[in-house]
Amino acid sequence: MQDWLAQRAMRSPERVALFFRDAQWTWRELDARVNHVAAQLDARGISQNTRVAVLMQNSDAYVVLVHALARIGAVLVPINTRLTANEIEWQLNHVHARFLIYDNANSATAAQATQSISELRPISLDELQSLTFPPNTKQSFNRKSKIENRKSEISNLQSPVSNLDSPHAILFTSGTTGKSKGAMLTYANHWWNAMGSALNLGLHDDDVWLLCMPLFHIGGLAIVLRSVIYGNPVVLHEAFDAGAVNRAFDEQRVTIVSLVSTMLRRVLDARGEKPFPETLRAILLGGGPAPKDLLERCAEKNVPVVQTYGLTEAASQVATLAPSDALRKLGSAGKPLFGVELKIEHDARDKVGEILIRGATVMQEYAEDAQATQRAFRGGWFHTGDLGYLDDEGYLYVLARRNDLIVSGGENIYPAEIENVLNAHPAILEAVVIGAQDAEWGQTPVAYCVVREKISANADELKMYCAEKLARYKIPSEFVFVENLPRNASGKILRRELAEQWTRMNVDERGITNYKTRARINPEANNSA
Amino acid sequence: MQDWLAQRAMRSPERVALFFRDAQWTWRELDARVNHVAAQLDARGISQNTRVAVLMQNSDAYVVLVHALARIGAVLVPINTRLTANEIEWQLNHVHARFLIYDNANSATAAQATQSISELRPISLDELQSLTFPPNTKQSFNRKSKIENRKSEISNLQSPVSNLDSPHAILFTSGTTGKSKGAMLTYANHWWNAMGSALNLGLHDDDVWLLCMPLFHIGGLAIVLRSVIYGNPVVLHEAFDAGAVNRAFDEQRVTIVSLVSTMLRRVLDARGEKPFPETLRAILLGGGPAPKDLLERCAEKNVPVVQTYGLTEAASQVATLAPSDALRKLGSAGKPLFGVELKIEHDARDKVGEILIRGATVMQEYAEDAQATQRAFRGGWFHTGDLGYLDDEGYLYVLARRNDLIVSGGENIYPAEIENVLNAHPAILEAVVIGAQDAEWGQTPVAYCVVREKISANADELKMYCAEKLARYKIPSEFVFVENLPRNASGKILRRELAEQWTRMNVDERGITNYKTRARINPEANNSA
Repeated sequence: MQDWLAQRAMRSPERVALFFRDAQWTWRELDARVNHVAAQLDARGISQNTRVAVLMQNSDAYVVLVHALARIGAVLVPINTRLTANEIEWQLNHVHARFLIYDNANSATAAQATQSISELRPISLDELQSLTFPPNTKQSFNRKSKIENRKSEISNLQSPVSNLDSPHAILFTSGTTGKSKGAMLTYANHWWNAMGSALNLGLHDDDVWLLCMPLFHIGGLAIVLRSVIYGNPVVLHEAFDAGAVNRAFDEQRVTIVSLVSTMLRRVLDARGEKPFPETLRAILLGGGPAPKDLLERCAEKNVPVVQTYGLTEAASQVATLAPSDALRKLGSAGKPLFGVELKIEHDARDKVGEILIRGATVMQEYAEDAQATQRAFRGGWFHTGDLGYLDDEGYLYVLARRNDLIVSGGENIYPAEIENVLNAHPAILEAVVIGAQDAEWGQTPVAYCVVREKISANADELKMYCAEKLARYKIPSEFVFVENLPRNASGKILRRELAEQWTRMNVDERGITNYKTRARINPEANNSA
Repeated sequence: MQDWLAQRAMRSPERVALFFRDAQWTWRELDARVNHVAAQLDARGISQNTRVAVLMQNSDAYVVLVHALARIGAVLVPINTRLTANEIEWQLNHVHARFLIYDNANSATAAQATQSISELRPISLDELQSLTFPPNTKQSFNRKSKIENRKSEISNLQSPVSNLDSPHAILFTSGTTGKSKGAMLTYANHWWNAMGSALNLGLHDDDVWLLCMPLFHIGGLAIVLRSVIYGNPVVLHEAFDAGAVNRAFDEQRVTIVSLVSTMLRRVLDARGEKPFPETLRAILLGGGPAPKDLLERCAEKNVPVVQTYGLTEAASQVATLAPSDALRKLGSAGKPLFGVELKIEHDARDKVGEILIRGATVMQEYAEDAQATQRAFRGGWFHTGDLGYLDDEGYLYVLARRNDLIVSGGENIYPAEIENVLNAHPAILEAVVIGAQDAEWGQTPVAYCVVREKISANADELKMYCAEKLARYKIPSEFVFVENLPRNASGKILRRELAEQWTRMNVDERGITNYKTRARINPEANNSA
């Protein structure tokens, strides 16, 4: 079978494939550019199954590279641009990457990360000059004779990617806990995910996806792969910017966008009272349990939010709420995609347990990590490490990462439950609850809060507020007021980092909380003034 | 993986799955009914890979049976109800069917067809009483507790159909020529066809498919399988009726229907001047090259016709025009579905040649016919036996079955070209052109015409009319005026039968046309009076 881009370019050559900055490319133009780049990669010795790491910002060149690597059957290894050179070096070594393609913004890190890996060749985007096409040649694709284009289509028939079980990419998990693992995703994983998503969200002829997540995470990459299968254009943003997102809604007739909660909050804030255009038909909301106040705010404003639960290891969406259920099942991540099975591993006394999945979207293995693979797939099911439950109608509710669960005096506390209460408080912009080590209870909840400008909040008031809505053991023992919360590149909050910071600053080597230190990092007095 | 119906019932239990006569069933109800029937089939010894022939009219029970056989992994062998007992017996023997399920309308034929096959057990629909559910129990599904229904879902997890490469059905080709062959279709063939179709036509939440073709042909069966994957309801008709089709458009918000040309003509005639509702978004027009006058008539009236080229061996659609190309590429069958490759086997001097295909929708083999399989797949491509060409933009135009090609004095004549001219004549309701044996030219075109009531037509006038539009060698040498044209069950014209009839009545054993005999069957004088 031809590769997906070749098939798409054959089917709808003149439709727009990609908008980036002020430029746009049709599928025919994108295909020609990819042919060109694939030839250059080939000339540098990149071939089928070669693992090629990419350290780049979002750009049209990144999209071209994704397709060019697929065309020659190489395996894409996208690298998170926020990592340190050390971390990158570890990942490159771990998957035996043979090449690293980097852009100007990342050249220093690339040099540092690769200096001691002798068998790896770094390639700059400038070296691959063809990647940044001279602006004037773009138009010339349109003038190319049709015969020329048909020839290029025929040449693509010999693409090595005829087996959907071939590896497409290794994506390091963006998981907020533990050692990074490389999820090995196949073409079949992506294909089934795209189909499952389409069966849930529908396929409209005028669909336009906005991509404002990093391409090195599955949430961004999946949109590029879906678009080539569906044939819809992608509006690509270099980075998330709430104003730019709103402009894309209003001016580019975007119909679907993927966001995480923090992004959505900012988009809503930036939008103010202006209604969303009717063309926008779905905001896929992923990246962890969605705060209830945010969902309610969207429901009130008629914003078409569709909650989803996704994983790198399952090529993005695992379960997604059907748009028609969005209001009736507020807070649920819906049902598993077609082709995905999901169950909860729980004991008799509690319906909450670990979410297990299997099916055509689930990766076969972690690259070069048989032990992690075996552990994750014990019993034939992939263990997600996330906690959730199914309601009577089989709808999934995701509560927390298992590692984020707080156990206090033998009671299970889900951070999201407390966060939902705090987020509904008018003074709080965003709250995150972690489990702090506690000599008496094992753990107690501690709340990190970002407060709204000009609105005061203090710990005592918030405790009293919580006491009205939560059982006593769920009331945070401490409140830490901060300016920002630590996040990874896709916007997920790094809970583990907060928990570690708390421990580092407040707990001595005997495990006893040091109250003096705690006071020092707690700017409560200032904020509540 | 669970079977498709179980997955669908889990995802959208309360949505309507099927409308038949005055009744309707939700996915949950259909699933429960299928569970019941699957248990009964199981009790009769039908299990994985058992080949079960079905000789029934379209009905809700037929749909239930299709899903019940899939649930236990048995192979469906749908039998054309228009066949003679002898022909059916041959098919049952050919595929070693172990069971034949028949309804009352077909009981006599079933008895006759099976009387000498000792290893086959006939089962009447009445014997499988559960198939025709007592009307009052239908409602009781709604009252079933949710817990009961969840139990039934869990039981379905163990479905044997976890491998998409398992055989789903053997469909005898409805080909109008040669010996019947049993196309062995897998779940994967159907799945890819459903996906390819969705990628072309889109998936809308409010889609309703009208099924008015026989379920024993791929065109009908494919709609049932698509519906369970997409989750859209099917409006099932017992048989084609132009008035009923129009009522379904107006009253049941049908969005998509599959028709062949003759059906579409009748629907247009029955509709008169009444516009089609806006809810109708696609009329998939298959069953052979579409007459140009019909397409033009639809374009004028804004009827959303989408031409398609389909084959039993490729699980229905092979190529379909995108709705957005419908007017620009009038007469084309569009581009191959995603996942299907298509090429034309032609020599240098002619762009027309045999249509070859390969890909995920194409069957692996003809059941019990290694020779036919080998012949069809020579060179790794499936040879369709149809003639066509690709235009400069890669759009497919289907001209004729290879066997219908008329070669006259070394010139190739495509019947459709002449038929398009004749069909545009006001006196002609429908025309079919066959190749008649001719001592001088090898073959010459002969036109069979159905004329409109009250409008006269005679051969001389029609010849003059053709002379204005066609090269001399394409002008039919004879016109035969008939009341009806012979068709198979899906409405395709049986050209071979006409050609055989012509030969039988007009050509003697030396191959010389007998003019006296010809006059006898040519009612021209009467019709042109």
